[in-house]
Amino acid sequence: MSTNPKVVLAYSGGLDTSVILKWLQDNYQAEVITFTADIGQGEELEPARQKAIQLGIKPENIFIDDLREEFVRDFVFPMFRCNTLYEGEYLLGTSIARPLIAKRQIEIARQTAAQSVAHGATGKGNDQVRFELGYYALEPNIKVIAPWREWDLLSREKLLAYAEQAGIPIEMKHKQGGAPYSMDANLLHISYEGRHLEDPKAQAEAEMWRWTVAPEQAPEQPCYLELEYEQGDPIALNGQRLTPAQMLAALNQIGGEHGVGRLDLVENRYVGMKSRGCYETPGGTILLKGHRGIESITLDREVAHLKDDLMARYATLIYNGYWWSPERRALQVLIDHTQQNVNGWVRLKLYKGNVTVVARDSKNSLFDQTIATFDDDGGAYNQADAGGFIKLNALRMRIAENTRRRRAS
Amino acid sequence: MSTNPKVVLAYSGGLDTSVILKWLQDNYQAEVITFTADIGQGEELEPARQKAIQLGIKPENIFIDDLREEFVRDFVFPMFRCNTLYEGEYLLGTSIARPLIAKRQIEIARQTAAQSVAHGATGKGNDQVRFELGYYALEPNIKVIAPWREWDLLSREKLLAYAEQAGIPIEMKHKQGGAPYSMDANLLHISYEGRHLEDPKAQAEAEMWRWTVAPEQAPEQPCYLELEYEQGDPIALNGQRLTPAQMLAALNQIGGEHGVGRLDLVENRYVGMKSRGCYETPGGTILLKGHRGIESITLDREVAHLKDDLMARYATLIYNGYWWSPERRALQVLIDHTQQNVNGWVRLKLYKGNVTVVARDSKNSLFDQTIATFDDDGGAYNQADAGGFIKLNALRMRIAENTRRRRAS
Amino acid sequence: MSTNPKVVLAYSGGLDTSVILKWLQDNYQAEVITFTADIGQGEELEPARQKAIQLGIKPENIFIDDLREEFVRDFVFPMFRCNTLYEGEYLLGTSIARPLIAKRQIEIARQTAAQSVAHGATGKGNDQVRFELGYYALEPNIKVIAPWREWDLLSREKLLAYAEQAGIPIEMKHKQGGAPYSMDANLLHISYEGRHLEDPKAQAEAEMWRWTVAPEQAPEQPCYLELEYEQGDPIALNGQRLTPAQMLAALNQIGGEHGVGRLDLVENRYVGMKSRGCYETPGGTILLKGHRGIESITLDREVAHLKDDLMARYATLIYNGYWWSPERRALQVLIDHTQQNVNGWVRLKLYKGNVTVVARDSKNSLFDQTIATFDDDGGAYNQADAGGFIKLNALRMRIAENTRRRRAS
Amino acid sequence: MSTNPKVVLAYSGGLDTSVILKWLQDNYQAEVITFTADIGQGEELEPARQKAIQLGIKPENIFIDDLREEFVRDFVFPMFRCNTLYEGEYLLGTSIARPLIAKRQIEIARQTAAQSVAHGATGKGNDQVRFELGYYALEPNIKVIAPWREWDLLSREKLLAYAEQAGIPIEMKHKQGGAPYSMDANLLHISYEGRHLEDPKAQAEAEMWRWTVAPEQAPEQPCYLELEYEQGDPIALNGQRLTPAQMLAALNQIGGEHGVGRLDLVENRYVGMKSRGCYETPGGTILLKGHRGIESITLDREVAHLKDDLMARYATLIYNGYWWSPERRALQVLIDHTQQNVNGWVRLKLYKGNVTVVARDSKNSLFDQTIATFDDDGGAYNQADAGGFIKLNALRMRIAENTRRRRAS
Repeated sequence: MSTNPKVVLAYSGGLDTSVILKWLQDNYQAEVITFTADIGQGEELEPARQKAIQLGIKPENIFIDDLREEFVRDFVFPMFRCNTLYEGEYLLGTSIARPLIAKRQIEIARQTAAQSVAHGATGKGNDQVRFELGYYALEPNIKVIAPWREWDLLSREKLLAYAEQAGIPIEMKHKQGGAPYSMDANLLHISYEGRHLEDPKAQAEAEMWRWTVAPEQAPEQPCYLELEYEQGDPIALNGQRLTPAQMLAALNQIGGEHGVGRLDLVENRYVGMKSRGCYETPGGTILLKGHRGIESITLDREVAHLKDDLMARYATLIYNGYWWSPERRALQVLIDHTQQNVNGWVRLKLYKGNVTVVARDSKNSLFDQTIATFDDDGGAYNQADAGGFIKLNALRMRIAENTRRRRAS
Repeated sequence: MSTNPKVVLAYSGGLDTSVILKWLQDNYQAEVITFTADIGQGEELEPARQKAIQLGIKPENIFIDDLREEFVRDFVFPMFRCNTLYEGEYLLGTSIARPLIAKRQIEIARQTAAQSVAHGATGKGNDQVRFELGYYALEPNIKVIAPWREWDLLSREKLLAYAEQAGIPIEMKHKQGGAPYSMDANLLHISYEGRHLEDPKAQAEAEMWRWTVAPEQAPEQPCYLELEYEQGDPIALNGQRLTPAQMLAALNQIGGEHGVGRLDLVENRYVGMKSRGCYETPGGTILLKGHRGIESITLDREVAHLKDDLMARYATLIYNGYWWSPERRALQVLIDHTQQNVNGWVRLKLYKGNVTVVARDSKNSLFDQTIATFDDDGGAYNQADAGGFIKLNALRMRIAENTRRRRAS
Repeated sequence: MSTNPKVVLAYSGGLDTSVILKWLQDNYQAEVITFTADIGQGEELEPARQKAIQLGIKPENIFIDDLREEFVRDFVFPMFRCNTLYEGEYLLGTSIARPLIAKRQIEIARQTAAQSVAHGATGKGNDQVRFELGYYALEPNIKVIAPWREWDLLSREKLLAYAEQAGIPIEMKHKQGGAPYSMDANLLHISYEGRHLEDPKAQAEAEMWRWTVAPEQAPEQPCYLELEYEQGDPIALNGQRLTPAQMLAALNQIGGEHGVGRLDLVENRYVGMKSRGCYETPGGTILLKGHRGIESITLDREVAHLKDDLMARYATLIYNGYWWSPERRALQVLIDHTQQNVNGWVRLKLYKGNVTVVARDSKNSLFDQTIATFDDDGGAYNQADAGGFIKLNALRMRIAENTRRRRAS
Repeated sequence: MSTNPKVVLAYSGGLDTSVILKWLQDNYQAEVITFTADIGQGEELEPARQKAIQLGIKPENIFIDDLREEFVRDFVFPMFRCNTLYEGEYLLGTSIARPLIAKRQIEIARQTAAQSVAHGATGKGNDQVRFELGYYALEPNIKVIAPWREWDLLSREKLLAYAEQAGIPIEMKHKQGGAPYSMDANLLHISYEGRHLEDPKAQAEAEMWRWTVAPEQAPEQPCYLELEYEQGDPIALNGQRLTPAQMLAALNQIGGEHGVGRLDLVENRYVGMKSRGCYETPGGTILLKGHRGIESITLDREVAHLKDDLMARYATLIYNGYWWSPERRALQVLIDHTQQNVNGWVRLKLYKGNVTVVARDSKNSLFDQTIATFDDDGGAYNQADAGGFIKLNALRMRIAENTRRRRAS
């Protein structure tokens, strides 16, 4: 019977997490349990299994899950119900995937009676925070191992040397010098950091982008989509009912073809520094526009404004890793409650990077043509009411100015 | 000596305000003083003078002002310092012009000893509120005449009949049936409402748009711009220093050529109904992106988030007509204070409707490459600090979960 | 068969609403349906029935309801879950009763097929708004009659003359000149406005107060209470389970004896003016302290802060009459969600006007003595973590200052 | 020439900081510079000088400052302009003193060319954060020494042993076992933590309180005060002009005599745990009431509400130690701007623990008796306006309900 500590590692099968795997075995004499998830990053998972076996992981300690539907249904869609943007622009593609991975890792730790979990995020980024806040919230006494904060393999060279020594297969690209972009992908987006992006005044390389064509290369013909919404979530595309993951995949496909969803940004990390990132979020960019469009006719004004007032706060919670916090949950309850009547369809036009809403309708529409019309409305709205409305809204300002004058005179 | 009441009318020279002019003379025996402003709507003002004279206005009662610089410098730019968007999308092109017109009208009323002011906004819209809140805030005891809320000329036919009878020249377009779009233009935007836009599921007509080419018709070559900012305001374009109005005009020109700034929206009016509007805001769309870009490297994270948390509220104040209110002024003081270090340049790419930031730099940049780098930072940042940071941020959630478990057991 | 319009009148049985009753009969030839509710104002309801009969109301048109339990359970307690204070001080005693009356009036209108409702609130106050926003939200096409905004009985003398002529019995107090305080009472509070309170620099008369003794007259011995809470609501007092209305009545009784809950205030009305009011809210003052006390040990920090950040907005919604609005409901969903673990007891001391929490405990307590202690905690908390926590929280400010210096040098 | 590191220590002269002083000499071979400030804690400072000399500090390395005026003028008063309360109840007496000490310590470090600063706050509390965020914000590259997070003297016994060995005089109270309360005092308050307060269900001991008499022991006669305000700050008491520190001292004196300002609280620390504290803030309690009173007649409604909406956030910033942050400064700019017309006087009554506003007046009063009156106002306010005001405010809710019905039918 082994008394070695068990560690559940979030394992991608790539170079970095393979080095971590080995390092956990070497440094902690750990029995490593690997967890590899398909959240739509677009890579085969079987190679990860093979590599794990090759690195000595017992078959029963290899967990490979397809979490795509859960990811979109329980994380991406709830977030989009709030029209969520971090710092006015970022669709939170990386942030929203971490809580799911943390949750599943903890579940596996319970199942395998592991005392520890480990991840491959660095000590400078947001992801370590997102993973670990999730771990601690769900399993408060878990031991967290964050190799990047512990080891001394901080340069690319040392890492490669360790890998070589440990017999970890190294792909050609890693050997051919030059730090790669730090990339992260899932069904919602792919991100790029590092390398010459570290200079905010340097333009991103054209070859960097992977999911979308450049607007210049997109088709000359616009594409029109119809999205149907039910309680704030998209359920059908051009009349065809799709599961959440199918929906996002389909929109990524179409959006990518039309050059939709590129973003080049300097953002503020939770750990206190600014960082430059480039993102491709084709489906998400369409979903944000679509959701604003369907809400525009189905949501009460003050409810919409309440949501807008809370949006940045909600976005920051997700960005900072507080998905599993009680305050995020409380906000979610409010947000979800507001979506009851957010039903209907939105017609969107995609063209060379642009996404625009061109039409929308709903059986729950609050748009009242009789009242909105510039033509005679047959008395539906009494224009004289506006006089009193303005008078009372102006009253406090009139009193203030009259008071000021009385005093001055 | 005349005892007729004096009324300062916001006069465009168009059909509607000409009918109002006549109606004020007829119904109030008013001595009408016309006020026509150039705020960049792109129309000659001299015809308005001629028409006023033709309608019997004394030359000394005709006021024509070029307010373009004041408009952009004191209204548009301050608003853009907050990255202001109403309901997530609308750049407030109409809203921001009304306070200036109201202010100037009151100044003229004082100068001419007029007791009243009048405007041509209907009783269903936001503009009546914006005008009148401005009037009352600045001159609390002014008498406001809002003909559209008083008269019975509520249909197009009645209006034309009145005009004809009054000898007001009617342009051909008005006679040829079909209600025109309700349009409003100034240096920031042109807007369209009414007609078949009143059906939110009907797509806007291609011929409606006036300021921008369709993205499909825009040049095949992207255009790169460099905007220089000083304390949050753009001061130079591609190295050439421009006045505020010149800047906005130049950006409108370039943006329009590249199909930038179209928006089709259902929005919530302050008077309680939803309404559909289409907008072209080429320069403003560029400015929003540019300002976010320069702030991204020069603004402290928490200051940026504070601004984001207040933005929707600030936008709603402007949309609803509270520019001259003490609460808008208080928010402005905060916003302006945050812009001290918002200096530097942003490089933008325009291409067939898209505006994207591709580079940015500033002598006040808070981006610290040494710390942000994925490479070895030579100790500038101690990764171990992150462990404590996460631990303490997680503590309340860990205690909560442990408490729950203790109770459950 | 009568074709006279039916009007449901909120009828107190007092002079003012009796005049309104008559005036509705005279001016609208209305078939008046009276609705009199016991919401704890402390007056017999049977005299109202007698008076209504005397004024010609058919017995089947007289509705008298005891709404005390509903009032406290569905309106007062939900509001207290948010520690609600308007403008930092006012416990919203009047505001919270109006939505219930509006709702019941609409129910009776439906039951009796009445097309109209009427109330006795003046055109200057908040209550008209609260009543009518309720009516319209629940029954959008109801006809509202607000006699004080329509008639010319605006002086006390005219009102009395009308009453006399109409054969309405007038109590001695009304005849003996001197405008009475405008008062409003229900289980939550009694309020006073008008008369010499209209001068904010005049002190309130000692004889004005009705529900509480002056602190000077309160017992020399303090009184200790124990309140038990379940999901944010008080359910037992000193170990005795009480219904909501019993609870509030009991706390009013004890609080009143100990001089608790007087308030003298200038507040901002929704209709645009400032007004001076005096309030006695003995039970409510205890409940606010008690609720803060039980939340202090059971609520997560960030949830508590989220509630605090939203509280003033929620209070303003209730003050302004938006109880039945979708935005108040959305906020309520969030607030109620946070109260799941707000269970336990609070010990309070009442003494001559003071209410103080002296002890509190809960099975859901998040207070962790092991961690909070100043003594050795046996490793429950690692003090070294604080160093990293502070370092990362300071990072952005350090970078900013270093940047500033580099630039300056 | 010495190469020993120089450390500026926040030195109270008490046991703990004397041990730290010695420990810095022993462990860092430090040349210690002591800084002792009078911020109104009510202790002689000369004994601290004597003790420092006794412990081997060179006279030129002993800094003793009277910071009382600066403390109240530049920290306490600005904070009170926002009616600041943390978690609805706490007046932030400790939090507001830390930034001043941090600032002065940094100034002395610059003056003496010291590379380090040290403080005596523990690793579990908020004060370490407040001190160190201040240090880092003002002097980003300062070295911070926090002995409580470094050493192993975590129990009372070890500390006393170290002191004895180091020849530090130990007062009798420390020897007589039983952990003392952890106390902190300055002109704004005195606080108590620890000991049996660590059990939130245990009542505080009567003998614990030091600054105020128990309400039961306070005079039978109420005391009336008149506070005069200028731009939001109190400048005269009962007609006598006082400096900021004199004002707060005088109010502490009177408040303390009347049993005003005791508070017993469980609060949420920034480092993640709940903690129980007792506070005496006699003058501050009076100032909060007074400031709300003067604002109630001089502040515009929406400005007041904006402040209320931001208050909890501002309070949390101060509580968490972000006084020197750019976001606190930005909020302060807004808050200060709103105080321009907050002039006038407030009359308050103190009686056995109660503080109540009984009258208030201002030359800048926005209270308009003509309009507020229940009597005939001679047309100053047109009650009919209220009808339109309500109608338009209700419109969105009416449309929503009508829409719902149409759909349901």
